Amino acid sequence: MAVYTEISDEELDALLDQYDLGEVMSCKGIAEGVENSNYLLHTGIGYYILTLYEKRVREDDLPFFLGLMEHLAGHGFVSPRPIAARDGETLKKVAERPAAIIEFLDGRSVKRGTAQHCALLGETLARLHTISSDFSIQRPNTLSIASWRPLFESCEPTKVAGLDPLIFSEIEKEIGYLEQQWPEDLPSGVIHADLFPDNIFFLNDRVSGVIDYYFACNDFFAYDLAICLNAWCFESDNSFNITKARKLLNGYGAVRDFSRRELDYLPLLCRGAAVRFLLTRLYDWINQVEGALVKPKDPMEYYKKLQFHQAVNTVSAYGLD
Amino acid sequence: MAVYTEISDEELDALLDQYDLGEVMSCKGIAEGVENSNYLLHTGIGYYILTLYEKRVREDDLPFFLGLMEHLAGHGFVSPRPIAARDGETLKKVAERPAAIIEFLDGRSVKRGTAQHCALLGETLARLHTISSDFSIQRPNTLSIASWRPLFESCEPTKVAGLDPLIFSEIEKEIGYLEQQWPEDLPSGVIHADLFPDNIFFLNDRVSGVIDYYFACNDFFAYDLAICLNAWCFESDNSFNITKARKLLNGYGAVRDFSRRELDYLPLLCRGAAVRFLLTRLYDWINQVEGALVKPKDPMEYYKKLQFHQAVNTVSAYGLD
Repeated sequence: MAVYTEISDEELDALLDQYDLGEVMSCKGIAEGVENSNYLLHTGIGYYILTLYEKRVREDDLPFFLGLMEHLAGHGFVSPRPIAARDGETLKKVAERPAAIIEFLDGRSVKRGTAQHCALLGETLARLHTISSDFSIQRPNTLSIASWRPLFESCEPTKVAGLDPLIFSEIEKEIGYLEQQWPEDLPSGVIHADLFPDNIFFLNDRVSGVIDYYFACNDFFAYDLAICLNAWCFESDNSFNITKARKLLNGYGAVRDFSRRELDYLPLLCRGAAVRFLLTRLYDWINQVEGALVKPKDPMEYYKKLQFHQAVNTVSAYGLD
Repeated sequence: MAVYTEISDEELDALLDQYDLGEVMSCKGIAEGVENSNYLLHTGIGYYILTLYEKRVREDDLPFFLGLMEHLAGHGFVSPRPIAARDGETLKKVAERPAAIIEFLDGRSVKRGTAQHCALLGETLARLHTISSDFSIQRPNTLSIASWRPLFESCEPTKVAGLDPLIFSEIEKEIGYLEQQWPEDLPSGVIHADLFPDNIFFLNDRVSGVIDYYFACNDFFAYDLAICLNAWCFESDNSFNITKARKLLNGYGAVRDFSRRELDYLPLLCRGAAVRFLLTRLYDWINQVEGALVKPKDPMEYYKKLQFHQAVNTVSAYGLD
């Protein structure tokens, strides 16, 4: 959860003066997202999310993120739509930060999805991949495999209290293996890259919203699936729920066909996805910000997920033949 | 700001099943209040605040707080109205905590009120005092003068890093003085007792809401005014703004007549109100909760306010004759 930046009434009024949204009726900080400051904004004509982009989001990337949301929403996908000011721009500035006013979407995220949620997630992810295929802006994945070794090297083992040094050498070995084996030519396009349970809303047994596109980038479609398998198909004791995985993959396959090669690479992509979140969590663990409102997540959860996928040979372990 | 308790979907649905509010469309933790967990709840028929009462609020006091809000709202005061479930009750339980669903009020709080805000505040406070005069439940002020010495004694000077020991003895001396001089028979009734800028909303140059009744109690009306003088009429450099004070007092006086005795006692009541917030801030400073989202407020701000009032002899220092 996060509300980092305070906005004065004057700044907020000056922002709203640029839009046709009526006057500000109320504006409350909400506990949503960890990278940015988010407010629930009630104006004369409706409810919106006002997002202030904090320093972890690169300003140069904002046209990609906002453009993608606009593209998706414009093609019937359940993305919130960024609202354009009278000058046609969706990106503005408030309290010295880049800011956007974004449609408010109803729905609730689930803490721990059921198999049925995984099926809906799969369909939705495939729809996102399909609809974004003609989105014109590109953004490389700054957390792709090329980033893992430097990220690993920035994490000094001595700083992680209580972590077995053996685990550090195992992670380094895994990175070496992934660097050798990582494919170069799987079907690619825009991926969400962070579709954790927090970022998808359900309402009346349907998906009502997919939010938080601030890791979206161009990469392998199947890598996005691998991220979701890790985020949705392990139970709280880190056991793998093959029913949820099957539902997720079948849901996806019902909308977009997998190639055989994508399926064959899935175990490797799941290992990579586990390493990516393991490393960023390790980094955040070591570099905890004094007084931050966000408690860093446990890196070891992803080490255990990695170990599961290391023992997998074929996609049948994920419930497919 | 605070969101302490997580609510599962099942718990939330079970709660809403007891009301005629339609189904849950969304529920987001908001950064409002420091004592309780607050959610902005969108249901099939509107927007509400869902409050979960955490341990700092005594459960036995909730019928007073909710009853007071209901009484005030029912008599045209800008209090949010607690919503009754189908069984007529406003107090329910969710996630093992007492909980209430309360009307959502539009408007915005100000960081630092202007003289005009102070005038509106004064009128509003007087209206609260007048309207609550026939509210039937009573609640003693648990932070009244009788509590100050024990609260002071629970604060060990050694634990407040960097605080001059002389200040501790000055506070003790002040408590002794107040115990001798405190009046027993000023006009009394229900007071808000915590009407800081956070707790009042403005919209279109009018007061649109007064919230957070969780310190409300029976005490001297003029003591509520003293709390407001301290909270609203000092600038950020702790200088006293006599224009704001005059506006606040005149705004109040336009709705409810002061007695001469109330005015004469005002400097003393301001000293007491300063001591009350000084002591609770000191206590919170010493007893900081590891990992809490709330940064304790600076106790010394209230020591400086106390010093200002110690030098005041008559109400003319507050802009009245």
